[in-house]
Amino acid sequence: MLHTVRLTAPSLRPNLPAQMYKSPDENRPPAAEILTIGDELGRGEIVDTNTAWLAQQLTELGLQVRYRSGTNDQLEDICEALQRAACRARVVVVSGGLGPTEDDITVEAACALWRLPVVIDPAHEARLRSRFAERGVPLTPNNLRQLRVPQGAEVIENPVGLAPGFRLDLGPAACWFFPGVPRELRAMFTSVAARIREHGLAGAEAAVVLRRTFRVIGLGESHVDHRLRGMLDGLPADLLARQAQRPTLHFRLSFPEVLVTVVARSRDSVAARELLDSVGIEVRRRLGGAVYSEGEDDLPVVVGRKLAARGETLAVAESCTGGLLGALVTAVPGSSAYFLGGVIAYADAVKQALLGVSADTLARHGAVSEPCVRQMAEGVRHRLGAVWGAALSGIAGPTGGSVDKPVGTVHLALAGPTGTVARRMIWPGDRDQVRRIAALAALNLLDRALSPERAAPPEGGAAPGEERL
Amino acid sequence: MLHTVRLTAPSLRPNLPAQMYKSPDENRPPAAEILTIGDELGRGEIVDTNTAWLAQQLTELGLQVRYRSGTNDQLEDICEALQRAACRARVVVVSGGLGPTEDDITVEAACALWRLPVVIDPAHEARLRSRFAERGVPLTPNNLRQLRVPQGAEVIENPVGLAPGFRLDLGPAACWFFPGVPRELRAMFTSVAARIREHGLAGAEAAVVLRRTFRVIGLGESHVDHRLRGMLDGLPADLLARQAQRPTLHFRLSFPEVLVTVVARSRDSVAARELLDSVGIEVRRRLGGAVYSEGEDDLPVVVGRKLAARGETLAVAESCTGGLLGALVTAVPGSSAYFLGGVIAYADAVKQALLGVSADTLARHGAVSEPCVRQMAEGVRHRLGAVWGAALSGIAGPTGGSVDKPVGTVHLALAGPTGTVARRMIWPGDRDQVRRIAALAALNLLDRALSPERAAPPEGGAAPGEERL
Repeated sequence: MLHTVRLTAPSLRPNLPAQMYKSPDENRPPAAEILTIGDELGRGEIVDTNTAWLAQQLTELGLQVRYRSGTNDQLEDICEALQRAACRARVVVVSGGLGPTEDDITVEAACALWRLPVVIDPAHEARLRSRFAERGVPLTPNNLRQLRVPQGAEVIENPVGLAPGFRLDLGPAACWFFPGVPRELRAMFTSVAARIREHGLAGAEAAVVLRRTFRVIGLGESHVDHRLRGMLDGLPADLLARQAQRPTLHFRLSFPEVLVTVVARSRDSVAARELLDSVGIEVRRRLGGAVYSEGEDDLPVVVGRKLAARGETLAVAESCTGGLLGALVTAVPGSSAYFLGGVIAYADAVKQALLGVSADTLARHGAVSEPCVRQMAEGVRHRLGAVWGAALSGIAGPTGGSVDKPVGTVHLALAGPTGTVARRMIWPGDRDQVRRIAALAALNLLDRALSPERAAPPEGGAAPGEERL
Repeated sequence: MLHTVRLTAPSLRPNLPAQMYKSPDENRPPAAEILTIGDELGRGEIVDTNTAWLAQQLTELGLQVRYRSGTNDQLEDICEALQRAACRARVVVVSGGLGPTEDDITVEAACALWRLPVVIDPAHEARLRSRFAERGVPLTPNNLRQLRVPQGAEVIENPVGLAPGFRLDLGPAACWFFPGVPRELRAMFTSVAARIREHGLAGAEAAVVLRRTFRVIGLGESHVDHRLRGMLDGLPADLLARQAQRPTLHFRLSFPEVLVTVVARSRDSVAARELLDSVGIEVRRRLGGAVYSEGEDDLPVVVGRKLAARGETLAVAESCTGGLLGALVTAVPGSSAYFLGGVIAYADAVKQALLGVSADTLARHGAVSEPCVRQMAEGVRHRLGAVWGAALSGIAGPTGGSVDKPVGTVHLALAGPTGTVARRMIWPGDRDQVRRIAALAALNLLDRALSPERAAPPEGGAAPGEERL
């Protein structure tokens, strides 16, 4: 273990009685602590998502996040919280207060506590100067302020922003500091996770921590929970015996998807992989074709990969979603390989003029109807010369519903080489939810058309009200 | 003030040196602390939204949330965190661990710390029994478990769930305990807020807390910060003298917008409003037309309201944003009053076929060019019969850039009754950022066309590189 004890001045020793330094308990995983800093958090202006994300990462490293803490941008409070965290955790992760403004004083607090001077990191400064020079923009003192670090601290590169992170050790605790911007923190933490392992700071028991995420669409969270209950206990005993700790199952809603993650904490990677494979078979048996994928890739990525592999193209015709389906599809880098474009047919006149929906259909069935979305899907497929045409028309709310067509009613259609299929869904949520679930339902319809294996029903069939897409 | 000091047994005194009991500082608002309890938070399985919500409520009560803290469902850790919170805050709000399962031990921790027996609250038990009897469902021990409270604690009704909350005082601190379910906590906190005021625990000085948010687009956060520096100190002295506390200025990034919020804590509502009006004039003088609105409404809402008031319509032609502009516009309820639809022209063939972009333009200038977006904007305006046509074409990345047209280059055009304007922007961010800033830049172009007052430059004009939309 690499522990540089820099804290030598007696006045800087944490202001706590000796018994508060916890001795490591062999029966518990090593403790970690997360400290988030910022007045905006103290006033509740933003929800802190860094803590949950960091807690996941640290848990996977075999650490236990025993305390979470937070302070405002107040020098003495930050120092006190840092000292306390260092007394009770082996790994301390600090986020926030490394920005360009006068409020951001986390560097000053760290320097006060460790008695180090504040310096500008030369590597980051050189990069910043060349970046600004390229754009012909002058550098302000504020820009440079963001590059402050304590002298002698181990500097952590920020690949996606300006402020570098850094590491300092306080007594037996390794303290890592990150900017509070979530995407910067996440990009930087990856290298730190490796460092935590290298330094032997991670939980020693679990030699291997592997997780696998199963992505589920079309079943509600409580139904997924119900169908998977007891699954881990039913795994073969010899397989469980080869794990360092009991595997755990976690649910996360990424509306409208449900993400099911299994974490294996094993003695070796073979045991971990066998456990995950075994769980995977069981998850698919219990949930059937509602499982559309494994891993980090969401539905737009998964569908896009299948289209690209087949050399097929997609066009969209959107009414109630107003472009959201296209936006989701094109959020994927490289989507131009399979996405041609589409028509946002919000007004009925646009449905007629650009998609060829007939006046008769609109008059007899209305825009929110199966005949209308069929014509929209076929129209956009034909006019853009795509292999697949997907269409949506619905009532996103909050007004515009009727007895026959309540708010949340959406008609979907998919036109393809072998004909057109249509679906109707009613989702009792707000405008944002209806639009999002509708756009993903259209993609789900396409993914099912591209994936014969998704025809499998869940074990015992779906219960009434269970399937929703 | 009502302070029942129940803590008599010496062994239960917080295990801290005397100097750690902070004496109240007259220059700072009274301190509050939020403590969230739960293993699921420590493992990062859920994002804690209670802390932000509670922090807002406590801030409005004139308290300062000085520390935020959290523990797992561990008896000794909860006790330690409670003791510490009671040493440094006057109001402590605890959420979580009041549920039906064996994991939920917040009541046990409170009872251990205060040396009180655990009892079932009789009022909640009677209500629960009658509720179950009505539904003909038998009561399980788990159901009753949720009704535990420390004997003698002040019980807080839970109008929307089973578990009651309670209050206990530890030394000078009033500690309120709530279930962790956000809707239950929120429903219960209302009565507690009144209690905090009654007990004189709130920041007594601030009779009125009012806030106003100014929405800024086209200036970076550091430039906004720089331009507003010292603004509050420059306010008229007699106006400041009528405030209960110094007003505060907060920045929040809602990419690519910057939200500037001023909080007035005043003796009366007249003084608060006068302060906010005075700040508003100064903010607009310093930032000019970069301030597009005040309040909660974002750019799509603001633009939509102006279009609706004028009886004018909008159509969009999107390449790199793939539908995102349309999705933002139609996220606003009632947008069908002014939004007709548009064309997602991802492939060049769609730009030609549906928007009338000429083959010659594409061959000579490429799709990411001013001539192309001009034709797209004019084409969609003409074909959909809209008053305004907005178009975008760019390179969102991560690949596809060149020396002339680096990743992040986006051309925008707005065609309207008096002709077409075009802009070029280069944004050095990732794909999501480029697409989002481009879509909002197009709306900003429209909002400026609809808003003569936004022609005002910032005081002294914009510095080079300062304006970005």
